[in-house]
Amino acid sequence: MDRDALASRYRRVRARTLELCAPLTIEDQQVQAIADASPTKWHLAHTTWFFEELVLGELAFDPSFRTLFNSYYECFGRRVERARRGLASRPPLARVHEYRSDVDRRVARALETGALDPGALARLELGLHHEQQHQELILSDVLTVLAAQPEPPVYRARAAEPVREPARLAFHVFGGGIVRIGARDDGFAFDNERPRFDAMVRPFAIATRPIANADVLAFIADGGYREPRWWLADGWDTVVRESWRAPLYWRDDGTLYELGGVHAIDPAETACHLSYYEADAIARWLGARLPTELEWEIAAGGGDATRGHFADDGRLHPAPAPAPESSVLGGELAQLFGDVWEWTASSYAPYPGFRALPGALGEYNGKFMSGQQVLRGGSCLTPRGHVRATYRNFFPPPARWQMTGARIAKDGER
Amino acid sequence: MDRDALASRYRRVRARTLELCAPLTIEDQQVQAIADASPTKWHLAHTTWFFEELVLGELAFDPSFRTLFNSYYECFGRRVERARRGLASRPPLARVHEYRSDVDRRVARALETGALDPGALARLELGLHHEQQHQELILSDVLTVLAAQPEPPVYRARAAEPVREPARLAFHVFGGGIVRIGARDDGFAFDNERPRFDAMVRPFAIATRPIANADVLAFIADGGYREPRWWLADGWDTVVRESWRAPLYWRDDGTLYELGGVHAIDPAETACHLSYYEADAIARWLGARLPTELEWEIAAGGGDATRGHFADDGRLHPAPAPAPESSVLGGELAQLFGDVWEWTASSYAPYPGFRALPGALGEYNGKFMSGQQVLRGGSCLTPRGHVRATYRNFFPPPARWQMTGARIAKDGER
Amino acid sequence: MDRDALASRYRRVRARTLELCAPLTIEDQQVQAIADASPTKWHLAHTTWFFEELVLGELAFDPSFRTLFNSYYECFGRRVERARRGLASRPPLARVHEYRSDVDRRVARALETGALDPGALARLELGLHHEQQHQELILSDVLTVLAAQPEPPVYRARAAEPVREPARLAFHVFGGGIVRIGARDDGFAFDNERPRFDAMVRPFAIATRPIANADVLAFIADGGYREPRWWLADGWDTVVRESWRAPLYWRDDGTLYELGGVHAIDPAETACHLSYYEADAIARWLGARLPTELEWEIAAGGGDATRGHFADDGRLHPAPAPAPESSVLGGELAQLFGDVWEWTASSYAPYPGFRALPGALGEYNGKFMSGQQVLRGGSCLTPRGHVRATYRNFFPPPARWQMTGARIAKDGER
Amino acid sequence: MDRDALASRYRRVRARTLELCAPLTIEDQQVQAIADASPTKWHLAHTTWFFEELVLGELAFDPSFRTLFNSYYECFGRRVERARRGLASRPPLARVHEYRSDVDRRVARALETGALDPGALARLELGLHHEQQHQELILSDVLTVLAAQPEPPVYRARAAEPVREPARLAFHVFGGGIVRIGARDDGFAFDNERPRFDAMVRPFAIATRPIANADVLAFIADGGYREPRWWLADGWDTVVRESWRAPLYWRDDGTLYELGGVHAIDPAETACHLSYYEADAIARWLGARLPTELEWEIAAGGGDATRGHFADDGRLHPAPAPAPESSVLGGELAQLFGDVWEWTASSYAPYPGFRALPGALGEYNGKFMSGQQVLRGGSCLTPRGHVRATYRNFFPPPARWQMTGARIAKDGER
Repeated sequence: MDRDALASRYRRVRARTLELCAPLTIEDQQVQAIADASPTKWHLAHTTWFFEELVLGELAFDPSFRTLFNSYYECFGRRVERARRGLASRPPLARVHEYRSDVDRRVARALETGALDPGALARLELGLHHEQQHQELILSDVLTVLAAQPEPPVYRARAAEPVREPARLAFHVFGGGIVRIGARDDGFAFDNERPRFDAMVRPFAIATRPIANADVLAFIADGGYREPRWWLADGWDTVVRESWRAPLYWRDDGTLYELGGVHAIDPAETACHLSYYEADAIARWLGARLPTELEWEIAAGGGDATRGHFADDGRLHPAPAPAPESSVLGGELAQLFGDVWEWTASSYAPYPGFRALPGALGEYNGKFMSGQQVLRGGSCLTPRGHVRATYRNFFPPPARWQMTGARIAKDGER
Repeated sequence: MDRDALASRYRRVRARTLELCAPLTIEDQQVQAIADASPTKWHLAHTTWFFEELVLGELAFDPSFRTLFNSYYECFGRRVERARRGLASRPPLARVHEYRSDVDRRVARALETGALDPGALARLELGLHHEQQHQELILSDVLTVLAAQPEPPVYRARAAEPVREPARLAFHVFGGGIVRIGARDDGFAFDNERPRFDAMVRPFAIATRPIANADVLAFIADGGYREPRWWLADGWDTVVRESWRAPLYWRDDGTLYELGGVHAIDPAETACHLSYYEADAIARWLGARLPTELEWEIAAGGGDATRGHFADDGRLHPAPAPAPESSVLGGELAQLFGDVWEWTASSYAPYPGFRALPGALGEYNGKFMSGQQVLRGGSCLTPRGHVRATYRNFFPPPARWQMTGARIAKDGER
Repeated sequence: MDRDALASRYRRVRARTLELCAPLTIEDQQVQAIADASPTKWHLAHTTWFFEELVLGELAFDPSFRTLFNSYYECFGRRVERARRGLASRPPLARVHEYRSDVDRRVARALETGALDPGALARLELGLHHEQQHQELILSDVLTVLAAQPEPPVYRARAAEPVREPARLAFHVFGGGIVRIGARDDGFAFDNERPRFDAMVRPFAIATRPIANADVLAFIADGGYREPRWWLADGWDTVVRESWRAPLYWRDDGTLYELGGVHAIDPAETACHLSYYEADAIARWLGARLPTELEWEIAAGGGDATRGHFADDGRLHPAPAPAPESSVLGGELAQLFGDVWEWTASSYAPYPGFRALPGALGEYNGKFMSGQQVLRGGSCLTPRGHVRATYRNFFPPPARWQMTGARIAKDGER
Repeated sequence: MDRDALASRYRRVRARTLELCAPLTIEDQQVQAIADASPTKWHLAHTTWFFEELVLGELAFDPSFRTLFNSYYECFGRRVERARRGLASRPPLARVHEYRSDVDRRVARALETGALDPGALARLELGLHHEQQHQELILSDVLTVLAAQPEPPVYRARAAEPVREPARLAFHVFGGGIVRIGARDDGFAFDNERPRFDAMVRPFAIATRPIANADVLAFIADGGYREPRWWLADGWDTVVRESWRAPLYWRDDGTLYELGGVHAIDPAETACHLSYYEADAIARWLGARLPTELEWEIAAGGGDATRGHFADDGRLHPAPAPAPESSVLGGELAQLFGDVWEWTASSYAPYPGFRALPGALGEYNGKFMSGQQVLRGGSCLTPRGHVRATYRNFFPPPARWQMTGARIAKDGER
């Protein structure tokens, strides 16, 4: 990417982050409602610190920000414990905005003057992808804050839609064989998408749409949340311990809360805020299983990852599944990108021959390769253009506060 | 008190609360740093709710505030759990200020128009004392927030003072006998200060000044925090479990943090942020004990409770103890009021014949009469004029975030 | 007490402890079901260690027993954490029996040969009272073990009794005045019962029988466990957190479990396994309060503390309250000693002029004087002859596994 | 297997379990020292219940044993919570021995009379493998009990050995390609070893011996337990939270505790009681990684799984690594079977086309397929003959109380 294009993209991405905060009060941006989520203010500062530390290489604005706004890089020393981020009333939000402006000016100047070497430019590009990841986190984390209010407010209103049924579940069959997996060497990709490698995959069938609320409602109606046989052992323990009876943000009165406010649960809507345990249990109850990440990548192979329902569209909640008369019944794969991150049956592990990035960035991905499952495809909270067919997201099995759903699969004929 | 005087006092107390918030950012007023403390924004709203609910008798501004800003009155139904007050980003601070103005207008009008019956007027007076209690809590709770910042800021600067030694500990002897304890029937007092009753007290001696930092430093130097024999069993468990090695807010480098910033530990300064366990252990190490609340009240008997170092003075930290050449060596009792709340050996229990207030206010005091110790005398965070010789404050033995210290006592000659 | 009498009493007390274990399996004596309770094996060894350490003064059998079987004496150094006593499979029970025999032989020889000085003899007498305290703990702690079995066994069978109603609650009035409280200087008493002192007490009335199951059943029927207004704040928190709906060991089917097995809840039976919170709440619901320990001691003044229902009787569960036509309606005080320990409104604190015992025994009582309430009168698990009118037992307010009940009181006429 | 052979094998396996308990006291067999481990008494009963429930099909001895001794089969209803198994003092051990004898008689008779259909015979065979798994658990769980004693006793003494260095780490290279993985259809294997499938594997090199204490000592000496860069993020969190500084059972004085007693840490000994996190970190520090389970199975392919150091040998602790002059330097693979379970980089997941066993046995393996890592090869606590090259054991990454170690691997040349 040339420097002008990079400068322009930098401005767009950074401006977009601020747009996301416009509906929020200062107080909304301060609160940390659950230990896994971070305050908006922290996201605003952390993404900025990333550029200052890793691109500019000098903490000129306030050296204490290394301690305050480092997320998890052990190589930079002591930092504020994650669960205590919400306690940092200082610096106030206004000061964080000054910080963003200052770093933006310095990055712009560095780009103009050619002060950045190729390594720094690569880290700048990485920083933009990193900020896009945090744009999604801002939305999912703000949802935890707003949902914690006794009367959860509307973040962005959306028009009511007629409630309807989704198309029934249909499958598309793939033949298996030796396939090439992972990102090519050219173009941007995270380290965890490489190296590209060959794998042998057996024939499989994959659902032409993700699980919809109608499927979850049927699972609930059949006593799914009270019946251990559908669940992994760890999942069942969690169901009992946390008293799960429905996906996160579902309410007892047939409504759910999302950034658009409280709405009736629409059977047609793509199901979201499912943990891996729930996705796996519902798949088993449907007589199916979750796809491996290789199967998912094969299925998504030729697709256009910029098409789909992303955060740039007005609605910050998954789109409805295809209608009952839809082409998915003929085997067309719908909603692969956007709407919901789709849990896969694959634990998050290095690809054969994986090498972490050099230096501090070596901590970016590799050290999380235990205890997590891979998710694919992006969501309605993801910025359009951020994901690829090879993109690997990951969260622990019990996580539900992300925009997560699932698509089921089956073994194919041999 | 006539209505004009009450109206004038109402305006002064309410304005004072806002003055205390002036040095704080919006974010400072949102954060709840420990479960025992509340956000400033909550204090601002709760004290206002008290007037609206118990004086005006109508939640006209926003009925949901009963749930949000009720502290502990079970009789008003469901409320936000104490430890989750810091999660309420909504309503924002600006809306709470509107709430205060609205209620202030309605109270002023009600006073003008004579709409308040004697019961309501009595509850209005109680509400002012209640708001003064929360003025002290605002300061102690804000201290927990500011102290949680990686670089704790100055709330209100104070001039540096020469460091010196305190007067040595001297005692004043009281003869014992049958004494009258508790508040007279006239004048304002909380229900827990009544009824007045006769008690028999043995001769005792009480220290002419509270414990000073010099005493704590000597205790530490003698290994006091490592030696179980000075401690109550529950206290020693706490020392070990919480790794206590000094009073709260003391730092390893010989400084302490207070609302005036970080300062060298001054031996002459009255010791503060002591738990009951520490106060009791230091007393034992000094060959003494803590006074009972009856002894304390006898000792304070004739004193003027408006003289002393209170929050209206510039400094929000205890004053130094009397100087080495001071009159306390002759037996004069110094610093009985203001500076620090003094832990007593008395558990918080009803006086003989105690009757709780009628209605909702019955929950004001009586239900806390287990598991707490009585403290006496007010502190440098208390508004001047708020305390009396008969005033009974109470906190659980491990509490350290309040402005708490102690004065030692001994059995007298018989 | 002369040495022969002491030797004889030593043999009797020690033999009685072993008798209590006869119905138990080796495994029953190993298990620690709750952190507050200890395994029977530990009690057997600990009481023996007390004699070896504090009377014989030499750990000749196995020096490691100081670490294993010291209860809470910090002065003897490191010890096994209380909650981990049940993990000590070694030494096995058989070895603990050898230990008991060995120490018994050495104590007998020391008594015969006159090797014990007066201090050691006094500690021997204290050791016997100490062992009696542990006899009661063995029974209450074993009950926690047996109750934890899926099918709780019978420890000692008792005959079924006809179910009936208790006498209605009546009161006896005492006039108040200056009274003498505490144990005389002669005869055995624990340090916490001294020194004897004068106190001023107001007129009061005290119930002629303890709370019976009929009273608890009525409290439950009136929704007492769901209504916060009857409860202290800490009590209500406990009710909610622990989901209390009845006294400990009550079952949903109208039965309760005790050492005699599962029985129908008898309205006439004296209520037991009540926490302080429950005792206080039921008293308030009855329009009364708990007595102070001074009031209790006055009421029990002239009574014979060896009469009553103690553990030496066959039944290890409280006796029924007096019958409806009983003399308690005329004001006679029934069941003051034995049956249940009666919670008082007094927190456990030192008497005026209290001095702890010298040396290690200084840790016996004084260091527990915070966070506990005084109980009076002994119980059906206490050995007959162990208690006195001045005897002060103490437990924390939430404790329910002891044989605890209550007797209500009221202010008297002035 | 014919019925006589099965009967004979049944007798041998069942007798072996009792032999393992011979050195233990009744109390040792009652205690549960950590929530993950079970009391020996419970193992003795649970393995017996498995035969009674799943082979005989009738709970004739005591129907309550279904609740008491079911491990995790949800389909059989309510059961005692795992962490509370140590509280069950009833039934006593003697009764569990009667239960074993009773079931053994009934199984013997059923075999003699031909009362068992082929399905029951298959479940009988499974029951024997199941009991062998519990033989290993008895040893690892007893180790947690004995290690919890203030003076950990010797379970079975072993001769002291000269301390020496292990052979240096050498590697054997495998070429990769398409390989067949999993158990053949004939012969016994657990469901999780099937179906057999083809996989593509890249060239790799695998160490010719497992990690030895010498390697761990070097890691420690290099500050490995204090340096986050070697660790997975979850691993580092665990190191900090649990204060890990060495493998489990290592002591500060250069010794370790094992079933043979306390011994000097021998550098030559195969390292054991490593968590997955430690195995992974040490591998990374050694410039290597852990093998996948496919790589491990390829490497072990032609080996004889009955050769190696198993629990039938005298020593219940891993054997020393090959000596410095050993043939492993030439590439021979040593200690693949026995000594220590070797952690692999593979999370525990179903093989392609996996089908769980029918009925209750469907809960045997499949429901644990999340959050665990695969281990291979058996250990010195495993009965000889129990493992195969295709055998898949699994534990969560932080588990250390099992006999777990690791063998490192590297990518091969392409």
